[in-house]
Amino acid sequence: MQKIVELQELVNKAIANHKYSKYPEELYDPLDYIMSLGGKRMRPLLVLLAHELFSSKKEQALNAALAVETFHNFSLIHDDIMDEAPLRRGKPTVHEKWNHNTAILSGDVMLVKAYELLSEYPPEVFHQLIKLFNKTAVEVCEGQQIDMMFEKQRDVNVDAYLKMIELKTAVLLACSLEMGAIIAGANKKDAEDLYEFGRLMGIAFQLQDDYLDVYADPEKFGKQVGGDIIANKKTFLWIEAHRLANPQQLEVLKYWENLTVFKAEEKVNAITQIYSEIGIPELCTQKINEFANKAFEILASINADIDAKNVLKKLSEDLLVRET
Amino acid sequence: MQKIVELQELVNKAIANHKYSKYPEELYDPLDYIMSLGGKRMRPLLVLLAHELFSSKKEQALNAALAVETFHNFSLIHDDIMDEAPLRRGKPTVHEKWNHNTAILSGDVMLVKAYELLSEYPPEVFHQLIKLFNKTAVEVCEGQQIDMMFEKQRDVNVDAYLKMIELKTAVLLACSLEMGAIIAGANKKDAEDLYEFGRLMGIAFQLQDDYLDVYADPEKFGKQVGGDIIANKKTFLWIEAHRLANPQQLEVLKYWENLTVFKAEEKVNAITQIYSEIGIPELCTQKINEFANKAFEILASINADIDAKNVLKKLSEDLLVRET
Repeated sequence: MQKIVELQELVNKAIANHKYSKYPEELYDPLDYIMSLGGKRMRPLLVLLAHELFSSKKEQALNAALAVETFHNFSLIHDDIMDEAPLRRGKPTVHEKWNHNTAILSGDVMLVKAYELLSEYPPEVFHQLIKLFNKTAVEVCEGQQIDMMFEKQRDVNVDAYLKMIELKTAVLLACSLEMGAIIAGANKKDAEDLYEFGRLMGIAFQLQDDYLDVYADPEKFGKQVGGDIIANKKTFLWIEAHRLANPQQLEVLKYWENLTVFKAEEKVNAITQIYSEIGIPELCTQKINEFANKAFEILASINADIDAKNVLKKLSEDLLVRET
Repeated sequence: MQKIVELQELVNKAIANHKYSKYPEELYDPLDYIMSLGGKRMRPLLVLLAHELFSSKKEQALNAALAVETFHNFSLIHDDIMDEAPLRRGKPTVHEKWNHNTAILSGDVMLVKAYELLSEYPPEVFHQLIKLFNKTAVEVCEGQQIDMMFEKQRDVNVDAYLKMIELKTAVLLACSLEMGAIIAGANKKDAEDLYEFGRLMGIAFQLQDDYLDVYADPEKFGKQVGGDIIANKKTFLWIEAHRLANPQQLEVLKYWENLTVFKAEEKVNAITQIYSEIGIPELCTQKINEFANKAFEILASINADIDAKNVLKKLSEDLLVRET
């Protein structure tokens, strides 16, 4: 979609032109590095799109767009340490390319830099932005902590899981949208509705990530299909399969989960078969649609530029069927 | 001093009564833990004392006092990971008591909580506070990075060292004072002068820490005398000794620094003797006085309540001769 590409280019240009600071280089090089790794730039895009619903002065929203992308990348640097991830977008993670201490400290300064970018707004707007941003940043940390706790828990129920992905992923998308609205001077109701749209849509996106990890077309999927299954990750599919499996199916699931030596493909095939028998893909698709439909209903009710709304709707729809 | 004890109690009560959040406990318990370890509460005390120079409504300043102490403790949690420190105020550090991931993430959320505490102020005040706080937080990270770099550098010159301790330590004291002034509605000149007082005094305090590490009375000193010498830490004393040593003295310094197996006491005695021969203690004391005198001159010029000024002066003087 032309409009999206245009805004993405605007974001990428703003990122390329933005220099955090220079000295000490050991502290700031990782910031430029991780920001240069690319990605869809979803969050800054959402700031700009939400802003366009109510205003045509898109330059106003660029600082906030940079701020949410900066925050997102701070969280990636620290999450990658915690998850011991060697790669991020196919390139070495910051703690691999430099070291743990640099990754901790560069992440810290990056979080502060996000606040610094927001502080360019006038006091009244800034105050609103920061209250929202603080709440969101706290929730993202809580989401990451709960996600790590789930790894050690024997069981996780679906409500707790939905809450976790809401905190870890959805609220930052929601926050990005509401920030765009606030900067454009939207009224409180519309700004909050946009937040809710983003929250629901964010949960739908994450559920779809869970779905695609198992059911994506390997040709089009960026990473190994079945990665979550191999790692026994407690996704929506895992949780619902364990809840709904009959004793025989449960036994097969547990058999594969407890194996320490196995052929990845065999494990993925066996568990995928159980998932399909139980009807997990349908259940997951239904849940995704539930969240997405509620989200689109809210978007429809918002009193804003219709063309801009259609762009936001189209982007969301495109993201919901990506790579399947 | 009665007034100081009173304010310290006020701070400790505010800390004890403040609950960051409850769930997930694994994320928030470390915050309550590190805040409960005590300490002199220097930074919040400075917020309150600076506030008292211009206002009598001390409750106004409590949130900012909590915010700077929260930020300080965030930096301690992350610094302790980077320095692999097992103990903090005689108790296990957060990464030792829990683990690295918890220490990273609890530190992150603690940094956000500092911003959250500040966001309780009205928009105009808040904007001023955050601009100052952002700048300070960035500098503290830069200071920590430069400090880590010094460990690997063969040589460090005294100006670079003074800059490092300014960033790592002094600016947060300065920021605490200016925040108190801002909240009390002081004029810009007075607020900035207080910052400068704090910056100079902060450098003096750190130089004194360097001095005390070697020349403190072991009976009164809280930690092992000579710890910096044992670790070859590039303090003001180390740097000046290397600059001023004659070839024979330099040889002795290098001999002890290059030994990997040695008796701590022998190394400390040998290097302390060289320091004393060169006149390092006098040089250090002179430098401390230089910074402190400039600081006190500035404090004297500030147009504020004279009793409150005397309390701030007395506190600074007391801190300058502690534990010698």
